This record gives sequence, C-alpha cells and structure tokens, in this order.
Amino acid sequence: MKFDKAVFVGIGESSLSKENWTKVDALVSKRVMLKPDDPQLKSQLADADCIVNGFGVQISKELIDAAPKLKYIGVFATAFNFVDTEYAKSKGITVCNVAGYSTEAVAEFVFGTLLEYLRDLEGSKKLGREGVNEYSGAFGGELKGKVFGVFGLGSIGKRVAEIALGFGADVRYWSRNRKSDYEAKGVKYEPIDELIPKCDVLTFHFAHNPETKNFMNAERIQKVKKGAVLVKMISIEAFDVDALEKRLSTGDVAFIFEYEEETPKEVFQKLLKYKTCMIYPSNAYATNESMARRQTILIGNIENYLAGHPINKVN
Amino acid sequence: MKFDKAVFVGIGESSLSKENWTKVDALVSKRVMLKPDDPQLKSQLADADCIVNGFGVQISKELIDAAPKLKYIGVFATAFNFVDTEYAKSKGITVCNVAGYSTEAVAEFVFGTLLEYLRDLEGSKKLGREGVNEYSGAFGGELKGKVFGVFGLGSIGKRVAEIALGFGADVRYWSRNRKSDYEAKGVKYEPIDELIPKCDVLTFHFAHNPETKNFMNAERIQKVKKGAVLVKMISIEAFDVDALEKRLSTGDVAFIFEYEEETPKEVFQKLLKYKTCMIYPSNAYATNESMARRQTILIGNIENYLAGHPINKVN
Repeated sequence: MKFDKAVFVGIGESSLSKENWTKVDALVSKRVMLKPDDPQLKSQLADADCIVNGFGVQISKELIDAAPKLKYIGVFATAFNFVDTEYAKSKGITVCNVAGYSTEAVAEFVFGTLLEYLRDLEGSKKLGREGVNEYSGAFGGELKGKVFGVFGLGSIGKRVAEIALGFGADVRYWSRNRKSDYEAKGVKYEPIDELIPKCDVLTFHFAHNPETKNFMNAERIQKVKKGAVLVKMISIEAFDVDALEKRLSTGDVAFIFEYEEETPKEVFQKLLKYKTCMIYPSNAYATNESMARRQTILIGNIENYLAGHPINKVN
Repeated sequence: MKFDKAVFVGIGESSLSKENWTKVDALVSKRVMLKPDDPQLKSQLADADCIVNGFGVQISKELIDAAPKLKYIGVFATAFNFVDTEYAKSKGITVCNVAGYSTEAVAEFVFGTLLEYLRDLEGSKKLGREGVNEYSGAFGGELKGKVFGVFGLGSIGKRVAEIALGFGADVRYWSRNRKSDYEAKGVKYEPIDELIPKCDVLTFHFAHNPETKNFMNAERIQKVKKGAVLVKMISIEAFDVDALEKRLSTGDVAFIFEYEEETPKEVFQKLLKYKTCMIYPSNAYATNESMARRQTILIGNIENYLAGHPINKVN
C-alpha cells in the first residue's frame, strides 16, 4: 500500500538524507513539499491522504477540513501540541509522532555542558590557543563523589543517572513514580524537598505539564546549596525566574540552560548577564545519530501505518 | 617525632591551605620557604633534615651533599626524575612522591574536552550569548555505541574506561598487561594494530618511557579511522608529529592535547593552526579535589616517615 499524495509542510529537502527520501518516495505516489505559509497549502491538501509536518507547524481544524481524503498526519518531532489531534481523531485520522530519538544526545549534552563549566574549558581553550602552557589556577570540581540529583527519571533522566554512576557520583533522584530497577543500580530516591538542598549538581528532565510549572519555586531555589550547578534542558516554566536571578546575582550557584521557543528571549537575556549562567541554543537534541534516528522513525511510522499496524500513535 | 628543619623549595605559600600549613608546622620545628634559585638555598640546607620540593625543582647530588643531616625528600608531584633518587638512597635518604591524586581529574577532563569538541560547545556557547535560539546545524556525534579505545589501562585508563561504559560506548583497550577484572566489566582487549583502525575515539594514558616513544608512529597514525578523535593527556613523544600534521591538514581526524613542559612550544603551535586540533594548558590534573588530595598525600608522607613506616617511597 502507498499514500496517493503526501504533503510535507515545514520540512526542508535537507531534513532527510537522499536515501531516506528514496524510501519515502517508495511509500507515496506523489510528494509535495511546501513551506508552512505557502498560499497553495489548502488547495494542495484537497486530494492529499497524508500530511507530514515539522516542529511547530500548525495543523488546525481548518486545515484538516481542507483535506477530506486525509488519513494520516506524521509529525517530525516529539511535541505535537500544534496538531489538533482530537479533531483528527474524530475524523478517523491517525497522528504519529517521532519520540525518543534524542535521548542519548540530550543526556550526553548534559555532561558536556556540565564539564565545560566545571573545568572552564572555554577559557582553557583560549589560553591554549595563546600558547599558555602552565596550569593557570584551580578550575572547578570533579563529578566523582558529588551528590548528583536527577529530577524526573524518564528516558533521558535514566541515561543521565547511568552516566553519572559511571563518573562515580552519588546519584539520587526524584520522580513522580519510584523506579525500583534504578534504585537497584544504586540511584537513591529522595523526596523533592529533602533532595534539593543536598545536591552539588541538579539536572531536570521531567515533562513539562501544569504539575511541573514553577516546580523550582522561590523557596526551593533558595534551598539550593552554595556552589551547586543546575542543568535545565526542559522549559524554563519550571523555574521561578526572579528567584533564579537572585541566586545568580550573588554568583553562588551556576545555571546551564537551553533556549526554548516558549519563553520570551528577554527572560534568557536577563539571566545571561550573570557570569555563572550559561545559555545554549537548542542543540542538546541534535547529533548526527539523533538526526538519523529521527528520519528512520518518521519513515517507520509511515510504513507501519500503511501495513495496518500503526506505531507511535498519539491520538 | 619532628623534623628539626624543613626547607620547602619551589612551593608557594598558596600551594597549601592554611589548615595544611598548620599540620606541616606540627611536624617540623622550623620551616624555611625558598625559591629554586634562591642564593641562600645551599647554606639553608646545611642543617636541614627535610627537603620538600615542587615539580621540576632539581635536587642534585650537589644539593644533597650540601645537606649532611638530610633524611627525607618529599616531592610535591608524581614525577620525580628531577631528584637524584639513587644518590639519595646511597646516603640513606628516603624520597617520597605524591601519586594518584589526579586520576579522577584527568579522566573527567578527557570526557569534558571530548564532548566539548563533539558538540562544539565553544561555538554553541557563543551563539547562545548572541541570543541565537534555534538549532544551528548538526553538531558532531554521540559517544554511545562508538568504539572507544583506551591505550594504557593504568589507574587513569581504568577510570576513563569505566566512564565510557557509563556512556554506553563499545569500550576496548590495549595495555602492556591484560586486566581480566576490566575484561569482566565488558572492556575488550585487542592488540594495538588491530584496535587502532576500529576506534572512533582513542585515548592515551600509558606511562612515558622509552618503550612508548613514538608509539603512534606514522604507520599507526595513518591507520586511524576517518572522523576519529584522539585524546592525548600524555607526552607528545608518543606521537609522530609529522604524520599527525598530515592527518590534521586534511581535517579528517581530531586531536585533543595538553601542552607539556618536555615538548618545544613550536611543535604545539604548528599543530594548533589546524581547525580540528585543540590544545589545552596543563589543566587536566587540576581540580579543587585533586589539589586538596595532593596536599593530604604530601603531609601523610611526612607523617608516615616520621612514624617509622614511610609510604610512597620511590627509592
């Protein structure tokens, strides 16, 4: 089985490898590539039975109504809140997302940015380039033996915990549900408010939802140990920004963040002026491997749908 | 028991904490601090029974002869080739060094610099500072699943292997002696020339000795896989620099080095011009923890000697 016509919206030609486009083209009789704001979008959807959309590309009720033959929406991202999945469901349209492809990329990024900060690699590299040979002052700390708190022991948190164990850290976690298999590995559970003040490193990996909004409230940020490093690869909505700024202004804690689309840039720029605040572009998820996995999952989703046993269905 | 007079040469007041100087002063009746080129050095040694010297500070036959009461030389470093240990032995003088304090610091530095390169953290940080939000091109690779070759499975190599296991790498090693306990952990032994061409990452941790000189000769450097990353925290004498330069000039491999005193700076500066060559100052060994451990071991050596059961004796 094949789709008659697949419309790719907000996905560039370069987003998939040549080999992978060949695989896609074996699954669709006709493929149309459009930008999200293309004026032809609606008319192109009239005879489409498949839409594949990139991160953040809205597939609204209105667009779904413009595609009476639509059977399948493939989201080229983990998040799918920009697709009206409920309305799609009511029309018998299957929505599949691409999840889990970046677990390893994010977990490794956490350690890269953490060690970068702890050992001042940027400054060190600069001195190296200038030909400075000798050791030039104490550079931060080691991970071994440190209390390493993982908040949210989902797929990324689990990998972070495992890597931290390899470093010989004293790894502890808080998560909504206890994970006895990880406790057996030596990752100790502690309630949130007991764990926070003990941590030398805090990494945050829980899903963003109303429950986790303001998770790190002013009181909890106040409790973070002097000299601790916080690594946040989730939405800043989990943090009280004013309380954060207060701690950063004294320089007694460090924060490593990633920009994310949901938060106004001004918020980050305000924090960025503090020396112990490192803000990275949204690169944590992106490695050659994760990008390849993402394509493989996208195509696998289409194949499985066409074969009659859809996977990664989100509606 | 106490030493009557201890002469500290080439060790600054700031090299030990206040608390540790207090401990030292409980073990010596008199303490004299001198720079290596102090004209008083010889005369001060006349009634000294203890010398403590910093890295690279020569304690020659001549200086030992100037200290007829000398019983003990404490070296504030792992290397002690700058002390005439044989002559000291012939005079009944005990020489103790400080070893193993930086194992963890070096092992963690390897992963810091490796991830810094693989994820282009320097460039990424810069973009972050400029407010660039979005992902800006594929950044390197993951460690998981990669063939990770550890050359020299001594104390540092062992920790590197353990951390690499945590990352989920396919960890292999070559070492002069097989280490069955590490093989049981999943670190696979391979002969040098079979291992080199398979590795995505190569880290070098063997001791610098005539046997390991030119270990990475032209033929072996030629065999390194395209796209591989080499991390060298040992002497560059183990590498054929011309062959290295050849590979670097095509940019198909990356080298992460540390400067070291033995090698002319010109050698490093020649390599530094290549984009995939990162040279750091000699910082790998230095963390707050390693610096504290070094002091603790130095003082422990003195205590143990005075108690009649010297440890870390090297002659």
